[in-house]
Amino acid sequence: MERISATYFIETPFDVEKAANVLAGEQSSGTFVAIPGETDELKERFAAKVESIELLETVSQPALPGAEGYDEYHRAKLNVSWSVENFGYNLPVMISTLQGNLYELTQFTGLKLMDLDVPDSFAAHFAGPRFGIKGCRQLTQVYDRPLIGTIIKPSIGLAAEQTATLVKTLAEAGIDFVKDDELMSSAANSAFEARVDAVMDVINRHADATGKKVMYAFNLSGELDVMLRRYEYLLQAGATCAMVSINTVGLAGVKKICDQGALPVHAHRNGWGMLTRHPLLGIDFVAYQKLWRMVGVDQIHVNGIQNKFWESDDSVVRSIEACRRPLLGGFEVLPVVSSGQWGGQAPETYRRTQTVDLLYMAGGGIMAHPSGPSAGVVALKQAWEAAVKGWSVEEAAQFYPEFGKSVEKFGKSLKLQSVS
Amino acid sequence: MERISATYFIETPFDVEKAANVLAGEQSSGTFVAIPGETDELKERFAAKVESIELLETVSQPALPGAEGYDEYHRAKLNVSWSVENFGYNLPVMISTLQGNLYELTQFTGLKLMDLDVPDSFAAHFAGPRFGIKGCRQLTQVYDRPLIGTIIKPSIGLAAEQTATLVKTLAEAGIDFVKDDELMSSAANSAFEARVDAVMDVINRHADATGKKVMYAFNLSGELDVMLRRYEYLLQAGATCAMVSINTVGLAGVKKICDQGALPVHAHRNGWGMLTRHPLLGIDFVAYQKLWRMVGVDQIHVNGIQNKFWESDDSVVRSIEACRRPLLGGFEVLPVVSSGQWGGQAPETYRRTQTVDLLYMAGGGIMAHPSGPSAGVVALKQAWEAAVKGWSVEEAAQFYPEFGKSVEKFGKSLKLQSVS
Repeated sequence: MERISATYFIETPFDVEKAANVLAGEQSSGTFVAIPGETDELKERFAAKVESIELLETVSQPALPGAEGYDEYHRAKLNVSWSVENFGYNLPVMISTLQGNLYELTQFTGLKLMDLDVPDSFAAHFAGPRFGIKGCRQLTQVYDRPLIGTIIKPSIGLAAEQTATLVKTLAEAGIDFVKDDELMSSAANSAFEARVDAVMDVINRHADATGKKVMYAFNLSGELDVMLRRYEYLLQAGATCAMVSINTVGLAGVKKICDQGALPVHAHRNGWGMLTRHPLLGIDFVAYQKLWRMVGVDQIHVNGIQNKFWESDDSVVRSIEACRRPLLGGFEVLPVVSSGQWGGQAPETYRRTQTVDLLYMAGGGIMAHPSGPSAGVVALKQAWEAAVKGWSVEEAAQFYPEFGKSVEKFGKSLKLQSVS
Repeated sequence: MERISATYFIETPFDVEKAANVLAGEQSSGTFVAIPGETDELKERFAAKVESIELLETVSQPALPGAEGYDEYHRAKLNVSWSVENFGYNLPVMISTLQGNLYELTQFTGLKLMDLDVPDSFAAHFAGPRFGIKGCRQLTQVYDRPLIGTIIKPSIGLAAEQTATLVKTLAEAGIDFVKDDELMSSAANSAFEARVDAVMDVINRHADATGKKVMYAFNLSGELDVMLRRYEYLLQAGATCAMVSINTVGLAGVKKICDQGALPVHAHRNGWGMLTRHPLLGIDFVAYQKLWRMVGVDQIHVNGIQNKFWESDDSVVRSIEACRRPLLGGFEVLPVVSSGQWGGQAPETYRRTQTVDLLYMAGGGIMAHPSGPSAGVVALKQAWEAAVKGWSVEEAAQFYPEFGKSVEKFGKSLKLQSVS
């Protein structure tokens, strides 16, 4: 029978093998006394199995509270598997199995889900991203370079018409993609529908005049019926992207939106820090992005090199690499690079990931360019041309005037790294 | 204008007031360069406000990675508020605002949402729990004592007919409530519908014969259409409770189930440890249970005194107290006490919470009672009678023979505490 497997990074004051068996027991048969009816055959069929244990370092202090006072805490990598017979092709119950009560076990002073693997048969049960990288490129007609995008700022406060005016400026500047902030869905002075009307009027006129249709990700996050109504509204207005805050809407709601299938879904991961910032608690992005690709999102946030948040460049690079690895023979997702980006990070991003299949988002980097937003968009495209050529930031700044001005204005914030 | 407020426990290596202002800025206007269009009037209307700062201890090591190398890390309690104009009555966007990107700010080496307060106007926009404590008591006809419940074990593996046989034993033993494990929704040998058929046949026959209808919480967790189909199936079979894994199904999906309004919703919080186990990351149960009561769940897990997990008794008591405090003038929710309970914890649970408005779940404590399951249920009822009288475990064991046998078998695992 096919099996689903999960890899955990754990810490325990107890014997690692015994702790691993507690995990497997709790997440399959699980009770503290023997029960009649639990036959050996039944256990064999439905029991979770510890497939491998790799011992790592031993430390003297526990990572998490709950089992203090021991001399040593052992860290290890565990691989555990379950039969598909336990839950079928049901993602919420699969997650309850892989990420449920086990975080509360006293046996563990640290537990993080690092990766998961599902059998090929999942491909027949999940449609995955309906658009993915190819679909997003077709809709924006952008090939051979990252999609260049921006977020409407201030995050919250602009009236619908003000947003539309900004979008007009950005469209005329040549941008490929614009999105609502995750804090903005429907505000007192910017009702969702009013914003769609105002913004799509600008985008549709611009598309009629120039042939270039800017992709705008409207944040339709909310209760289910609200989201479905908004989705219909987007379709009728000719919009080409729906944004959802995946952690706050939750799996069942996001999947229902993805399953509508008519618009790429932009997955915003706000709240993600809560799930991953501790090295021994929660879930790693490698596992996280697999779950959401099975749900069917087309674009997913990965932060950016030298971002304004806590995350290291190494972690961002690993996230982009994770998104690029095929899942179930495809399930392509477009990584969304954002947070403090202005083009100066393009050479390093390309050097480390060797891909242009990105949605590259810059905020102030575009709107605050010394020569205006058009020059800001041009500078970003130049930054990526230079990046693909293998040029350093300094080389690109000398060759491209608009990018050069970006470097003058924003370069001080960058820890410049030589690419040679 | 009405405001929503949130209380955080934070840690920062920087000036606390400055860090608090970064949080407020990031979660309202939020960008790293000034933008035209962001007027003072607009900022005033939509800006988050730091309402209060209470300085706590200073420590020398950061709780979370991301800002190492400072000498001191300051801890504080912050209260921050937002206008309802920012997001209206939209829970996912409210959560993105209160619990979004702020966990990733380098300014914080620790951040936990401890509590939140919404204005009274929320009562008009959310129906809350449709059944709550009163409704669950009416359906089970249990008054003046906790509902006594159990979980089908093994968690996964029993065939539908085996589950039904167990339920027959439990019903005859006088149990009030039975539930699926969160690992069990539809398994290869226990399809959801087959289990409903088999179990409800037993429950309905028992109700016809005795007038007592056991409440069985069937785990309908899954994708949205699956859950709605299963919900209908439950209604037609005469079931009286639907169970949902709230973290894995997610807010929009769970709310859609609650909004059906015909069955109490049993909220299982598996995965909760990931969200709260670190003292300076995630969300405290006080805030968490408010969110889910607004979503409309009728029963929510709170762990139990002297549980088998990492959580302290103090924390469990605080959770029960949080559930008992009225929200928006009502929004009653029934706390589900479980994990390693067998009746021996009843005196301490009552002494510390002074309530019998509980769903008190015991597993092995019922099925593995030396005189059989009927005696197990009787022993639990006795434990609660004794608890309300203010008796100690020892006093109760002397007076009640069935409870006395429970103490003989399970008492060794209990850290007995005098209640006098």
